[in-house]
Amino acid sequence: MTDTSAHLIALDWGTSSLRAWLLDGHGQILDSRHEPWGILHTPERDFARAYQTVVGEWRHAHPDLPALACGMIGSRGGWQEVPYVAAPADAGAIASGLIEIETGIDRLALVPGVMQHSDAATGALPNVMRGEETQLIGVMARQPALSQNSLLVMPGTHSKWARVERERLVGFTTHMTGELYAVLREHSILGRPAHECQENASEAASLEAFDEGLANARAAGSAGLSGQLFSVRSRVLADELSPAASLAYLSGLLIGEEVRSATATLSGTSRPSLALIGDDALCQRYSRALSYFDYTNVQTIHDASISGLMTIARHAGVIDPV
Amino acid sequence: MTDTSAHLIALDWGTSSLRAWLLDGHGQILDSRHEPWGILHTPERDFARAYQTVVGEWRHAHPDLPALACGMIGSRGGWQEVPYVAAPADAGAIASGLIEIETGIDRLALVPGVMQHSDAATGALPNVMRGEETQLIGVMARQPALSQNSLLVMPGTHSKWARVERERLVGFTTHMTGELYAVLREHSILGRPAHECQENASEAASLEAFDEGLANARAAGSAGLSGQLFSVRSRVLADELSPAASLAYLSGLLIGEEVRSATATLSGTSRPSLALIGDDALCQRYSRALSYFDYTNVQTIHDASISGLMTIARHAGVIDPV
Repeated sequence: MTDTSAHLIALDWGTSSLRAWLLDGHGQILDSRHEPWGILHTPERDFARAYQTVVGEWRHAHPDLPALACGMIGSRGGWQEVPYVAAPADAGAIASGLIEIETGIDRLALVPGVMQHSDAATGALPNVMRGEETQLIGVMARQPALSQNSLLVMPGTHSKWARVERERLVGFTTHMTGELYAVLREHSILGRPAHECQENASEAASLEAFDEGLANARAAGSAGLSGQLFSVRSRVLADELSPAASLAYLSGLLIGEEVRSATATLSGTSRPSLALIGDDALCQRYSRALSYFDYTNVQTIHDASISGLMTIARHAGVIDPV
Repeated sequence: MTDTSAHLIALDWGTSSLRAWLLDGHGQILDSRHEPWGILHTPERDFARAYQTVVGEWRHAHPDLPALACGMIGSRGGWQEVPYVAAPADAGAIASGLIEIETGIDRLALVPGVMQHSDAATGALPNVMRGEETQLIGVMARQPALSQNSLLVMPGTHSKWARVERERLVGFTTHMTGELYAVLREHSILGRPAHECQENASEAASLEAFDEGLANARAAGSAGLSGQLFSVRSRVLADELSPAASLAYLSGLLIGEEVRSATATLSGTSRPSLALIGDDALCQRYSRALSYFDYTNVQTIHDASISGLMTIARHAGVIDPV
């Protein structure tokens, strides 16, 4: 008989939302809560009260369950700062960096983020992630084939491209593509034609403009985007691009440049497996962009936070191994 | 005896300022006015009244002088839109695109901008300039050696890199470096450490951070800036960069990437002459960046609008040839 009793209270507490699950010993969801109480939107910044509201009932029914949270809740602007673990890091290293805090109703363990230090030999710049490491651990647990040699891409405000080798996160880069898109749309001259235009582009017109952005980013080659960004405006002035589709073109340029840049150093023969992690709509765009750069059949993996939290809890010894 | 009588009323009327000169037949300044009445700041958008206020006295004394204005005053958001002249273009082509308008006190000729159309064969994207073409014409008139084969760089909000061959502007790219710097500083996560920090970096610390930005942009090579931009934040988190110097580092990254990108396709043997056109402080930064990329002894040319307006007026036949 399968044990379906509660084993773990697990939280992914990020910048904009708080998700909590009551999980059995296999990571199956017995109950869940979702609140818009990310650390920037937690009422009165009272993290303890938000936590008690979300998990109080579960805690009351299960006084002895371990509780674990990943994400920005462990950042300087969150409940308590948890020092980064250094890359390369595996699930064990991350589990050994857990920090327990008193919540008022129990003790909650916070997952550390991962920092990559600069390396003069390789030219690597410092980099940080907080929350993504848990998803990466989850992906490796669920798809062991990807844990040996892969590039795991997590598109978003700050896209992460993580290199995974032999069950370790060995290094990563951050591409601010989502934030760049948002600030250029809202605050630069490039967003104006779309703002002033009353109509929306058709789905087909948007897709065509997105593809033109990908094509131009690819054609830029080693010169990169610097001399191309202004084309979001100049192509409108030259009647080559409709104002309504100009933001889709901008999106194609930026995502295309991210893919071009991140894959510039991958050689054809020993290319790692590549997978996308994230929500459907964004992963579809990235999948289209990757195809354009000849990375076809890239699989998309949906949220892996739960698997990651289960795996880290097992490595920490707070729940039993499978 | 040299003729020092008034020959031309000349204006450079841009986005943020309006400069006007009363010039003799050699382009020497007999009188000048400078008002903060760029087309975005012209009181009540009453261009006629602004014009009358600035040049009325000269016009009264010299009823028959020709008057000529370059810059954004001829854009869609200005007094009257003057259609772009197509690149390649020389002084004659620009002069033949002049449009005369009634000002209420006289007739004023507006200088057209230049548009580069897209070209599938070369991969060139559309590009536009309005005001810079007049400076380029002025530089060619003043420094004939640069008019045969050069790359003229005009740093700014939207930097222009113009290719000049045999007295013609043959093509150009726009790099939104200044605007990118401003929107990232004001509206992105990258500006936060500097905003929150109360102290200013020393001149030496700023210069060192700027140079680090140049070094990283150069080291990025063909991968470009996409995976490096976030280092403005991550290097602060890793205690490699002080918050006070972080914007100087960002400036170095962006200007470095502009130079890397714009010079990526220049071969070592047939490199064109390179010159900077613009104000001192910004040209000094670009000069430093160009040195870093092995373009040394780059000369800086100060505002060439007056020479350009004189040259265009001569080609239009409204003042005598020298």
